[in-house]
Amino acid sequence: MNIITIERKVLEKNDEVANLNRALFKQHGVFSFNLVSSPGSGKTSILERTLEHLNGKIKIGVIEGDVQTNFDAERMAKYNIPVVQIVTRGGCHLDAPLVQAALQKIDMKNIELIIIENVGNLVCPANYDLGEKMKIVVASTTEGDDKPLKYPGIFRNASALIINKIDLLPFINCNLELLRHNALTINPQLTVFETSCTTKAGIPEWCDWILCKISK
Amino acid sequence: MNIITIERKVLEKNDEVANLNRALFKQHGVFSFNLVSSPGSGKTSILERTLEHLNGKIKIGVIEGDVQTNFDAERMAKYNIPVVQIVTRGGCHLDAPLVQAALQKIDMKNIELIIIENVGNLVCPANYDLGEKMKIVVASTTEGDDKPLKYPGIFRNASALIINKIDLLPFINCNLELLRHNALTINPQLTVFETSCTTKAGIPEWCDWILCKISK
Repeated sequence: MNIITIERKVLEKNDEVANLNRALFKQHGVFSFNLVSSPGSGKTSILERTLEHLNGKIKIGVIEGDVQTNFDAERMAKYNIPVVQIVTRGGCHLDAPLVQAALQKIDMKNIELIIIENVGNLVCPANYDLGEKMKIVVASTTEGDDKPLKYPGIFRNASALIINKIDLLPFINCNLELLRHNALTINPQLTVFETSCTTKAGIPEWCDWILCKISK
Repeated sequence: MNIITIERKVLEKNDEVANLNRALFKQHGVFSFNLVSSPGSGKTSILERTLEHLNGKIKIGVIEGDVQTNFDAERMAKYNIPVVQIVTRGGCHLDAPLVQAALQKIDMKNIELIIIENVGNLVCPANYDLGEKMKIVVASTTEGDDKPLKYPGIFRNASALIINKIDLLPFINCNLELLRHNALTINPQLTVFETSCTTKAGIPEWCDWILCKISK
């Protein structure tokens, strides 16, 4: 029982700081996404295609979360935008205080959208509010069509689902319609995009949706 | 500081029960694997191919760990072996007490190998000893070649690495030699297998290794 109490306190503390982050985003009129997925489903590639497509249209800052290495931040460097790398050193998710510290290194006055790329983990990040406006879950076709049912938490808490790597569908055993159906069974409110970072399919639609959300 | 203390106590309690599990395996001469990977890298498919290949050669029992659903246990049912499903209901890893409870439902006298399929998560399961003889990490080619460096914990603690989905290499941007090199940089002791559950490539080698380990 002690452990449960402590965990609740950790989440309460997290939520307090998440509210501060949310207030900071609001104060500066900054929209924010928290991008969550399994390792290797293509979060960083989607970010790259997004930055290329939205280049010059809006001012974007990126917070990269990784268990180890700053490879992802290095991949962002070529876009000449503000990037902060958080290395959790074994930690399985980002939390609001980590994001708060990262936000202090970004000049929010010159930003319209902050994209937070979480640690690759379909379980733990679902429970941590970072103060973001929306969680976006990425599921790649290579992971199979059953993932929304097996890992429902993040699909329930997300506003949109990006089904990535659709170019690989001819070579794998994944039923795209079933994947979409399973996701919408868990969360009927999900907006669903189908993308390939190789062919760039679906990237314009996803980016148009971002622009629409930001302009609201 | 309180939280760290509590976490240490949780791990200490886990390790106590892991030692009991280990003693139970030893008492019955049962070998045991703890299969760890990202969601959708093919753990259950590898299990299916393994059970088909080793059919009749050794007596195998399976413990399936999932955040939600008993789909994986259902996939095992056709092999007519003892299967116990653990549903963590949001929990991000198996722990030793969960496995202890599952082991009580298996007649250990009639088993030579227990394979534990952990929750799909490349981070948290790395830190939890279940009492297993060896951790086996699965990384699929579609996840990219940088995963050992980005999620070093489980690669450090594993005895073998199964690189799965090698049939997809012609269609994706993954350098197999680099993936292997990155894994061996983290852990030079790793035995590495390259498999495809579609073509069955590498399955005989992996199964021979299992038989060799069990006979020792």
